[in-house]
Amino acid sequence: MTRKLAVIGMGNVGAAAAHYIVAGGFADDLVLIDKRAEKVAADALDLQDALPNLPFHTNIVVNDYAALADADVIISAIGSIELQDNANDDRFAELPFTRVAVREVAAKIKASGFHGLIVAITNPVDVITSIYQEVTGLPKKHVIGTGTLLDSARMKRSVAERLHIDPRSVVGYNLGEHGNSQFTAWSTVRVLGKPITEIAQEKGLDLAELDQEARAGGFKVFHGKKYTNYGVSTAAVYLANTIMNNALTELPVSNYREEYGTYLSYPAIVGRDGIVEQLQLELTKEELAKLQTSADYIKTKYAESR
Amino acid sequence: MTRKLAVIGMGNVGAAAAHYIVAGGFADDLVLIDKRAEKVAADALDLQDALPNLPFHTNIVVNDYAALADADVIISAIGSIELQDNANDDRFAELPFTRVAVREVAAKIKASGFHGLIVAITNPVDVITSIYQEVTGLPKKHVIGTGTLLDSARMKRSVAERLHIDPRSVVGYNLGEHGNSQFTAWSTVRVLGKPITEIAQEKGLDLAELDQEARAGGFKVFHGKKYTNYGVSTAAVYLANTIMNNALTELPVSNYREEYGTYLSYPAIVGRDGIVEQLQLELTKEELAKLQTSADYIKTKYAESR
Amino acid sequence: MTRKLAVIGMGNVGAAAAHYIVAGGFADDLVLIDKRAEKVAADALDLQDALPNLPFHTNIVVNDYAALADADVIISAIGSIELQDNANDDRFAELPFTRVAVREVAAKIKASGFHGLIVAITNPVDVITSIYQEVTGLPKKHVIGTGTLLDSARMKRSVAERLHIDPRSVVGYNLGEHGNSQFTAWSTVRVLGKPITEIAQEKGLDLAELDQEARAGGFKVFHGKKYTNYGVSTAAVYLANTIMNNALTELPVSNYREEYGTYLSYPAIVGRDGIVEQLQLELTKEELAKLQTSADYIKTKYAESR
Amino acid sequence: MTRKLAVIGMGNVGAAAAHYIVAGGFADDLVLIDKRAEKVAADALDLQDALPNLPFHTNIVVNDYAALADADVIISAIGSIELQDNANDDRFAELPFTRVAVREVAAKIKASGFHGLIVAITNPVDVITSIYQEVTGLPKKHVIGTGTLLDSARMKRSVAERLHIDPRSVVGYNLGEHGNSQFTAWSTVRVLGKPITEIAQEKGLDLAELDQEARAGGFKVFHGKKYTNYGVSTAAVYLANTIMNNALTELPVSNYREEYGTYLSYPAIVGRDGIVEQLQLELTKEELAKLQTSADYIKTKYAESR
Repeated sequence: MTRKLAVIGMGNVGAAAAHYIVAGGFADDLVLIDKRAEKVAADALDLQDALPNLPFHTNIVVNDYAALADADVIISAIGSIELQDNANDDRFAELPFTRVAVREVAAKIKASGFHGLIVAITNPVDVITSIYQEVTGLPKKHVIGTGTLLDSARMKRSVAERLHIDPRSVVGYNLGEHGNSQFTAWSTVRVLGKPITEIAQEKGLDLAELDQEARAGGFKVFHGKKYTNYGVSTAAVYLANTIMNNALTELPVSNYREEYGTYLSYPAIVGRDGIVEQLQLELTKEELAKLQTSADYIKTKYAESR
Repeated sequence: MTRKLAVIGMGNVGAAAAHYIVAGGFADDLVLIDKRAEKVAADALDLQDALPNLPFHTNIVVNDYAALADADVIISAIGSIELQDNANDDRFAELPFTRVAVREVAAKIKASGFHGLIVAITNPVDVITSIYQEVTGLPKKHVIGTGTLLDSARMKRSVAERLHIDPRSVVGYNLGEHGNSQFTAWSTVRVLGKPITEIAQEKGLDLAELDQEARAGGFKVFHGKKYTNYGVSTAAVYLANTIMNNALTELPVSNYREEYGTYLSYPAIVGRDGIVEQLQLELTKEELAKLQTSADYIKTKYAESR
Repeated sequence: MTRKLAVIGMGNVGAAAAHYIVAGGFADDLVLIDKRAEKVAADALDLQDALPNLPFHTNIVVNDYAALADADVIISAIGSIELQDNANDDRFAELPFTRVAVREVAAKIKASGFHGLIVAITNPVDVITSIYQEVTGLPKKHVIGTGTLLDSARMKRSVAERLHIDPRSVVGYNLGEHGNSQFTAWSTVRVLGKPITEIAQEKGLDLAELDQEARAGGFKVFHGKKYTNYGVSTAAVYLANTIMNNALTELPVSNYREEYGTYLSYPAIVGRDGIVEQLQLELTKEELAKLQTSADYIKTKYAESR
Repeated sequence: MTRKLAVIGMGNVGAAAAHYIVAGGFADDLVLIDKRAEKVAADALDLQDALPNLPFHTNIVVNDYAALADADVIISAIGSIELQDNANDDRFAELPFTRVAVREVAAKIKASGFHGLIVAITNPVDVITSIYQEVTGLPKKHVIGTGTLLDSARMKRSVAERLHIDPRSVVGYNLGEHGNSQFTAWSTVRVLGKPITEIAQEKGLDLAELDQEARAGGFKVFHGKKYTNYGVSTAAVYLANTIMNNALTELPVSNYREEYGTYLSYPAIVGRDGIVEQLQLELTKEELAKLQTSADYIKTKYAESR
């Protein structure tokens, strides 16, 4: 009798996610949680001021962990805006803050009796997703990071812009860490009915440049406004909707891959039972090596974080 | 062949409006303008990173005044976040900044050949709407301020909360200045099939308290997060959609009332030709006096601003 | 983890409701039931052929009463198109068919273990709603008929057309039977900020004519296409969404009024717990008499149907 | 200042398209045209009865060819339900009726001064699209048939059902005639990150069976309910939205291919200027032969129809 979502962390990302959820009528009940009691109460009030002019109604609950007991999906948008701003554009700079904050929050989620799914946006997302799973004890398939769903969107945007087409008409994935070791798996990218490698030759596209553009896309946004929020919150809500719909959509998200022994982004079929099937791509040797490097990096960082 | 919207001012309000427009698929073409070239480019890129995960496509153009020539509606969200934060919670504190910025922008809008409608959010909104109309020379009915569409939503939220009903099931208006001289015209408010004055007696509601709550609602949000954006941007986009749809909806917005010689908020029928009919409410003597006071205040401030 | 809706009866009304639900993404799971196994299977397949081109996914289940056990809302759209076409434009002409069909269906609903809410469209709707409640044994507040939610919409359309305004800017209700004894309670209708009785004098509206237009609106549609479906299915889905959202919206629907001893249309606050509050309008003596007549008519017909 | 759509032909398909447009708020102005004046007036009234319970407003105009002068997209849904029901399940059975009706309508469209785009659903769609282009004299790229956008959806539905995945996660096309000579170009179909030919081997899918299922899908629906409407009207509205959005989406639609000298379905990039780029697939020899056969069939039938 309800779609019940929660957003934990009311920074720029969490607030944009909450706004999108309310504006789209995606949840019947919405739980908003943040340590800054005044901030989250203000956002809730502001969203409630939007309701009279919206077509859907959403019941908003603030800072009540008990309300998570029967929530369907929790979106974790915890972050430290100060640590995001570092000279190396490295998402791991946030880890000293987020690993502590997330362990604390995950313990409270567990204590609430929550038995739904977690969608993690918090960076470094692959490590943080691992921590959420570890602390809550939820099945690995029920804890998912947005991962390269966002980076794949950035790759699609870059490719689409060059070819003057809809980014939704670009097929393919960025894989690995949602961080600097990620890469576009060009062998998976198809556009205009052909592998992009062929189109690149025909139309003179520089794939190395596009790869870099996708990887750096977040930092370009970051440097322009000191945070990024619309792309990632849209990806997170799309993932949450896919779960609630039981849509069984193929999405490149951070999920636990047994053969790599870690969470990393790799396409999977996503539904109400979380990761219901993991794809087996036919990557090139070079891509496999990059993926291994990315996996090793995440594992090392996760080990260090414990 | 297009719904073309523009948002000028990419602060918290303008960005939330742009996000809502893109997420809702309300515009085919969207022009974003801000003096801070990096900020507006970053927001545009961030919104484009959302597009691959959205059902609708939006063509986003950045900082191109020439693109306004055939725009349908311009939403003005220019503001000074520093001046908003003042000890008196007075929206006029922004005027020294906004009156200059808006005159400059309005001249550029005029120069572009724009002949659509303007929806102003910029505060103090009644004076700013007057300035937009004055500088652009557009018909008075084509320049509209969001005005108390937001304050009426706040009043509805407060009333609805007390009565445990949907705020959309509260009928009535806040009138006058979108500022401290505004008031809820309780004679126009109906709920549960009766005038609210009767319900207030039946259920022990304190209308004076509710009136204050609606007026102060914005500041409560402001103090909690140092800006307000979701309520007001939702109201502005709803107004823009009403115009493009030619919906002829009754909305309490800031429009020029001949008998008061000023822009002020008073319900009107809004469509593609802007303010197509002005309501004639049957206010109490007390309400009429408050409205006159509010009108006089706006007129004085506008005169001072010239 | 789901919004689960069911539509029973895949005639013109039920199919339009199912289409609207799928196109709007209002349900995660949708159960479609009809005695004509080929028809309902064809509609389900046709809707599934729409899914690849829609933004939301819906899981469609066909002719499985067991799937109702955990459904949130069942929409009953059972009807006999042959009996609808009668010389007197009387919705009771369908009763000999629908009373039998509905008793049968209601028994199966009960047997499924269903414990959600029922939204009845099937005519004559006030009697049919009573039968659903009687047979299923569900709480009276959990069985609701669309009633004059549709007739009120028709009244709003007629009034709005005359005044060149948005029908959503007309406030007020049609009351009583969703049938020939219904009436517009003009004392509740407000438009352009005033009671419609005043506006009628100002603008020369003939309320008796408008009353007749609303009552006859359905038959005008019926005679033109031999059925009516879009208005009523939109009303039914809006009601179902209001329930699932727990929106607590004021709606004129068929609900059981103790003081009249019958289901009839009268505005109520609607949410997840069904009819959560019944309004107490201040009707005129004339309106009260009409309502009594309408109530008596429904009661007599219900008694005859047993 | 407007999205103006028209639907010509208010049978089951046209009415479902109009309903979807109104329910989704996709058009500001909507022109409905049908020879059966009572039917189209009844549908318009029925849709207007839905408006008070919908979030968007749509201005509906009935049977006014002059209103097409500034329309953006016309959807042609003219058809003969009697001729559709033929022993051979052959869409050409409708041609004797539709070729006459469409020539008449196309002449009126031309006379109106219409200079937008035409989306044809009317069958046999490839021939009918040719006739629309011939009679109106509009640029070939501005007249488009829904073609195998629907059949591709059916193929995706069949594949997705077997693999328990979202049909939107199936990539690929049906090509050629929207009729019995069409085929699924399996060399273009990818699923679970691989060519479907590989997945078919891994999971034991019978592609010939799936091919037949997609081709026959429409007839299965047809035999169950004596018409098909939701799949095709969703495809048509999606195509119209893609045009108005200028989304530049890759869609398998009926477009004029110079090398085949005929309209036939083949993927193209679609935007405000219609067919803005035609894909060049790398089909197998067998697929190329099938496509040639399909093209020849359409050309012959078009020649016969003149």
